[in-house]
Amino acid sequence: MTPLTATATTARERMQRAKDAARSIALLSDADKAAALHTVADAIDAAVDDIVAANAEDLERGRANGMSAGLQDRLRLDATRIAGLAAAVRDVAALPDPVGRVLDERELPTGVQLQKVSVPFGVVGAIYEARPNVTVDIAALALRSGNAVVLRGGSAAERSNAALVGVIRAALAERGIDPEAVQTVDDFGRDGARDLMQARGLVDVLVPRGSAQLIETVVSESLVPVIETGAGVVHIVLDSSAPLDWARDIVVNAKVQRPSVCNAVETVLVLADAAPRLVPPVVAALQAEGVTVHGDDTTRILADGVVAVTDDEYAVEHMSLDLSMRVVEDLDEALAHIRQYSTGHTESIITDDAERAERFLAEVDSAVVMANASTRFTDGGEFGFGAEVGISTQKLHARGPMGLSELTSTKWLARGAGQIRP
Amino acid sequence: MTPLTATATTARERMQRAKDAARSIALLSDADKAAALHTVADAIDAAVDDIVAANAEDLERGRANGMSAGLQDRLRLDATRIAGLAAAVRDVAALPDPVGRVLDERELPTGVQLQKVSVPFGVVGAIYEARPNVTVDIAALALRSGNAVVLRGGSAAERSNAALVGVIRAALAERGIDPEAVQTVDDFGRDGARDLMQARGLVDVLVPRGSAQLIETVVSESLVPVIETGAGVVHIVLDSSAPLDWARDIVVNAKVQRPSVCNAVETVLVLADAAPRLVPPVVAALQAEGVTVHGDDTTRILADGVVAVTDDEYAVEHMSLDLSMRVVEDLDEALAHIRQYSTGHTESIITDDAERAERFLAEVDSAVVMANASTRFTDGGEFGFGAEVGISTQKLHARGPMGLSELTSTKWLARGAGQIRP
Repeated sequence: MTPLTATATTARERMQRAKDAARSIALLSDADKAAALHTVADAIDAAVDDIVAANAEDLERGRANGMSAGLQDRLRLDATRIAGLAAAVRDVAALPDPVGRVLDERELPTGVQLQKVSVPFGVVGAIYEARPNVTVDIAALALRSGNAVVLRGGSAAERSNAALVGVIRAALAERGIDPEAVQTVDDFGRDGARDLMQARGLVDVLVPRGSAQLIETVVSESLVPVIETGAGVVHIVLDSSAPLDWARDIVVNAKVQRPSVCNAVETVLVLADAAPRLVPPVVAALQAEGVTVHGDDTTRILADGVVAVTDDEYAVEHMSLDLSMRVVEDLDEALAHIRQYSTGHTESIITDDAERAERFLAEVDSAVVMANASTRFTDGGEFGFGAEVGISTQKLHARGPMGLSELTSTKWLARGAGQIRP
Repeated sequence: MTPLTATATTARERMQRAKDAARSIALLSDADKAAALHTVADAIDAAVDDIVAANAEDLERGRANGMSAGLQDRLRLDATRIAGLAAAVRDVAALPDPVGRVLDERELPTGVQLQKVSVPFGVVGAIYEARPNVTVDIAALALRSGNAVVLRGGSAAERSNAALVGVIRAALAERGIDPEAVQTVDDFGRDGARDLMQARGLVDVLVPRGSAQLIETVVSESLVPVIETGAGVVHIVLDSSAPLDWARDIVVNAKVQRPSVCNAVETVLVLADAAPRLVPPVVAALQAEGVTVHGDDTTRILADGVVAVTDDEYAVEHMSLDLSMRVVEDLDEALAHIRQYSTGHTESIITDDAERAERFLAEVDSAVVMANASTRFTDGGEFGFGAEVGISTQKLHARGPMGLSELTSTKWLARGAGQIRP
C-alpha cells in the first residue's frame, strides 16, 4: 500500500488536493471510470489480509474502550465481508454513467444553441460513523459519477478506513488516475469533521450518514450544502376498508423483515371503524413474530399483551421489534398524527377505497407515499437504481432513495456564432 | 385592505401559519392558481394610491436617514412601476403549472407502480433588500408553484412591502384562498431575518437576493436549506483565433448593455498571440461607449487610456462601466485565472476553433458556459422560462437561471395491491 498522504499536514490541504484532482476525474470517460473501479475491486480482494489486520486494531481498541457488541459487529471486516465490498464496487462499475446526459435542449431566438447537461458535483464529502463499508460504497459511487471524495468515517474505524482508502488510492494510481481524488480526514479527529463542514468552496456537497444526532450536528454546523439522509419514523394507516390480509402481511413485513433500518414501520394508525376487525389479528400476527406492540387505550382493549404507549414514543425510531399502534377517529386524525410525528421518509395507507388512497397520496408530505404496499420498498435497490447513496428526507435537490444521478449537478452549455443580446 | 396579521405576535407564529396554509395551497388546481394571480394583479392595479402613499413614507424615512439616490430609485414605486408589477403577476399566471408533472415512472418486479411527481416545496422564504418589486415577484412565483411564502424585504421598504402584502392577502381571501399563505416578517427587524433563517421545519427553502454580503450572511447563518443566487464575476476569453467582430461586439454587449447586473462581464482575458490584433480595437470600442478599461502591463502597452489593474480587482463585481483586461499566455492560464476568480456564474470564450470551444465548455465549472455568445444571455427570460426566481451559483438543486420548476421538489408515489418486500 502507498503512504496515504505523507506530506499533507492539514485537513484543508487534503481537501484542496481533492478539489484539484476533481478536475481530471470529471473528465474521465465512462469506460475509464468503470475500468478504474474494477481495478479497485481487484485490489480490495488482493489486500484482504492487510484490511483484516487493520480492522483488528480498530476492534481491539474498541473492545478496550468498552464498545458494544452491536457496534463491534458493524465495525468488523472479515474475508466474506471484504469480498462483499469488492463485489459492491463491481456492481457500481456496471451502472450507467450519470454524467453527460442532456437534460434539456433549446434554441434561443437569436440561434444560440442551449443544452443542460449533467456534470459531477466536483468534491463530495461524507461524514459517517464506524461503518468501514461506507468508505468503499461512497468512494465507489463518487468516482463512478466523476467526483472526488473526502471521507470522515470516525476515529473508531480509523485504521480500517485508512487501509481501505490506501488500497483505493493505490489502485487509482495504477491506472494513471490521480489518487488525490480520494481523501480521508479521520486522523484529524473531531477537527477533521469540523474542517470538512467548514470547507465551503472546496467541498461541493456533504452527505451525513448515521444517527439522528450526527445528522442534526452536520445540518446545524455545516457551511457546505448538505443532503440530509434522515431517520425514518414511518407510518402505516389501516383505513376503514383495509383488507385484513393486506393489512396484516404489510404491517408484519414492514416491521419484522429488518427492524433496524429506516424504512421499517414504527407506528400503525388504525381507523376506529375498522379497529375491532383489524387490531386483534394484526397484533396477534406481530406478536407471533416476536414484536412488542405499544398501544393506546383502545388498542389495549381490543388486543391482549399490548403495553401502553406514550406520546414520546410516537416520535421515536425504535430500530427494534417494537411497534406503536394507535386507533384514530378518521383519516383526518391519521393525517394530523403523521404531520406531527413523521420524519418525511415513507408512509403507506392500506385501503380498498381508491379515492381515499389518492387523497392520502396527494396530502402526505413525505419522500415516498404509498397505497397498499410495504414501506420496505423505499430503497435504491428496490427502486431499480442499482446502488443507493442514502435516502434523502429533505426537499432540496434529492428526495427519497438517491442513486448515482443524485451525485451530479447540471451545467448549461451555450454554443453561438457571435450572438449578442438584442 | 385587511389588517396584516393582527394577532400574530411573533415571526415564528407567522411562519407556522404559512406552513399550515401551505397544505391547502399545494392542492390548488392550475386554474385556481392562475385565477388567484389575476385577482392579485387587479388588486395591485386598484390599490395604486395606497401603495404609492406607503412607499412615500419609506422614501421620506430613507431621505431623512441619508439614503443614496441609487437606493431611493430602487425603492421608489410610482404608477408606472406599479402597473408593471401587476403585469408581471399576469405573466406569471400565464406560465404552465410546474406541479404534478410525472418525472419518472417505473413498475417494480412485484408490480408496485412507482411515479416520481413534482410537488411544491411547501413554504418558500425570501430575504432581500429594499426592492419592493421582489415582494410581488416572489409571492407570485411561489403561489404559481403551489407554495406559501414568508418575505423579509428589509426595514427600508417596510411600509411598501406591508402595503403590497396586504393587497395580495386581501385578493387571496376574496377568492377563498387562505391569505395566511403570504407572510412578511419585516416588522420584526433583524430578529425577523434571524427567525426566518432558523425556521428549520417551518420553512423548506430560503432564497436570498441582494448584495454579496447579504447572501454570505444567509449562507453562513441559515439552518434552512438555501439556494444561493450569487454575484457574477463573469469572464470572456478571447482565444487566438477569435474573430475581431465577434470579440468586439460580444465584449461591448456584455459590458455596456446593462453594467449593473450579474451577467455583465467583469474581466476579459486575451490570449497573448492574439493580443496585438484584438486588444487595441476592443479597448477602443469599449472606451467609445464610456467604459474605463483596467488592464495589466501588456494591455497598457497595446492600448492607450488603460488604467492599471490590481489583482484584487479581478475578484470584484464592478456593477459599473469598468472592465478588467489581462493578457494570458495560453488557454491553460486563462482557465487557471477563471478557476481563481470566477464566482461560477457565466463564462464565454470567443474562438473560431471548435476543439478549443469544446474544451472550454467541458472544463469550465460554472452554471453557464458559452462559446461565441454574450454572457448577457444568462437570464431566465432569455432562456425562455417566462420568469426568473434568480440565478443560482450553487450546484445543489438548481444551477443557473431558475424558473418556476426550481420552486418545486419531488415526491415518489407507490401504488400497490398488497405487495410486500420479498
